[in-house]
Amino acid sequence: MPLYFNKSDLTAFLTEVFPQVKDDFVIEAVKEMEVTVRLKVQDRHLRPGGTVSGPSMFALADCSIYMAVLAMIGPEALAVTTNSSMDFMRKPEADKDLIAECRLLKLGRVLAVGDVLIYSEGNSKPVARASMTYSIPPKQ
Amino acid sequence: MPLYFNKSDLTAFLTEVFPQVKDDFVIEAVKEMEVTVRLKVQDRHLRPGGTVSGPSMFALADCSIYMAVLAMIGPEALAVTTNSSMDFMRKPEADKDLIAECRLLKLGRVLAVGDVLIYSEGNSKPVARASMTYSIPPKQ
Amino acid sequence: MPLYFNKSDLTAFLTEVFPQVKDDFVIEAVKEMEVTVRLKVQDRHLRPGGTVSGPSMFALADCSIYMAVLAMIGPEALAVTTNSSMDFMRKPEADKDLIAECRLLKLGRVLAVGDVLIYSEGNSKPVARASMTYSIPPKQ
Amino acid sequence: MPLYFNKSDLTAFLTEVFPQVKDDFVIEAVKEMEVTVRLKVQDRHLRPGGTVSGPSMFALADCSIYMAVLAMIGPEALAVTTNSSMDFMRKPEADKDLIAECRLLKLGRVLAVGDVLIYSEGNSKPVARASMTYSIPPKQ
Repeated sequence: MPLYFNKSDLTAFLTEVFPQVKDDFVIEAVKEMEVTVRLKVQDRHLRPGGTVSGPSMFALADCSIYMAVLAMIGPEALAVTTNSSMDFMRKPEADKDLIAECRLLKLGRVLAVGDVLIYSEGNSKPVARASMTYSIPPKQ
Repeated sequence: MPLYFNKSDLTAFLTEVFPQVKDDFVIEAVKEMEVTVRLKVQDRHLRPGGTVSGPSMFALADCSIYMAVLAMIGPEALAVTTNSSMDFMRKPEADKDLIAECRLLKLGRVLAVGDVLIYSEGNSKPVARASMTYSIPPKQ
Repeated sequence: MPLYFNKSDLTAFLTEVFPQVKDDFVIEAVKEMEVTVRLKVQDRHLRPGGTVSGPSMFALADCSIYMAVLAMIGPEALAVTTNSSMDFMRKPEADKDLIAECRLLKLGRVLAVGDVLIYSEGNSKPVARASMTYSIPPKQ
Repeated sequence: MPLYFNKSDLTAFLTEVFPQVKDDFVIEAVKEMEVTVRLKVQDRHLRPGGTVSGPSMFALADCSIYMAVLAMIGPEALAVTTNSSMDFMRKPEADKDLIAECRLLKLGRVLAVGDVLIYSEGNSKPVARASMTYSIPPKQ
């Protein structure tokens, strides 16, 4: 199954549809069923103790898997997250960006499932793991 | 097991420790092993399509269960989320606050587990369900 | 929304469609969007250390939520589990039956979501919590 | 961190401690932080419709990640599953064994986290994904 969006087209789409997140996320790589997304960690992503907040990591995981779905099927901007599961395993470093390595495990007609490992840039031990399910609305 | 914090003390603690969230969350009720927390939905919580974003609901669930733990054991501000699971079941209404009804299912020496149902205010059908596990650090 | 199956009809259906589980499970109560199911704990459900095994608790949770769906929509025997999340919070007692208290949180056209608390009979503290999603196939 | 158990020692340990599962599971490979485990699919693992049951897949995932923990830390037979999350993505083939490819993402002092992809033998698309957390009791 070929890619619908390459990296630059996917970036342009993200910028248009989610203007509020374009300052946070950078799409680093797009391959068939895989994307890599960077969270540019800034003060608003931190929580007391100098670490990246859970909601910021959730947002990164959610955005990444959604980007992986979009890269394959195109601008189904209505695809919605129906389920998520996350394990928070290590404390992210406050002064490093987070890198999400995401793969789609299933891309069905009505449901897509992806999982993601999140790393503090430059560290090989993942800080978090997430899996998410998306419901894909029928084409009009 | 008695409450460590009542509602006003817990609110004061939240305001002190998480100043960045005090504009978002209101603790509505505190009982043994239970809290109710309101997300004052504002533009920054919305996503395209006029609905509350997933990360905002994650933040509400995470904050609520954390508040329920704190209400019981006091200011263990270092307790960390180790696992979360969420089901997003219905589209929240953009112009309604979200209400999280949270209960602790386990409050052990090292792990606490809580679950939460999130409602658009005034609607009896939950928009989301979450369960989360917290690791409680040993007392110094 | 009325019940499609009452308790005796649901029991008869379970016996017919899942003959291999009828020695394990007893439907204790059926209400709108709610069921209570008993696991008759036997040696084959135990694991070393004298406690009920994880797979046995998973089977109980899965069966219970499935029964709650069937009680509402009738013999859609092809409904399939697409996602599960469980927290194992306390050690079940080896010589007590397990009781699953299950409620449906969503019963949509294509997805159903339920959650369940599992208790050792006679103990008010839950041993496990589960939530599951089912995909409901289109009617022929 | 070196392996505590190699494949044959881990197999011997499984046989001794979980005699009831030794007819079901075969440890195919053991590496640092990784194991591969086969479920020898038999009639008792099937459900109506000719597919492997959810509880059988749960048991395979749970056993695999537990084996991965044991391979690293040795016979802490009391390590207990505290959380699991599974996505059931495709229908397993009834006449094929299931192969679980498991990796540990975290092996801490008190918590271990692993994930697993489960395949019908010979098919490259996973039928299920699981992640599980184990609580490791303190050494006596």
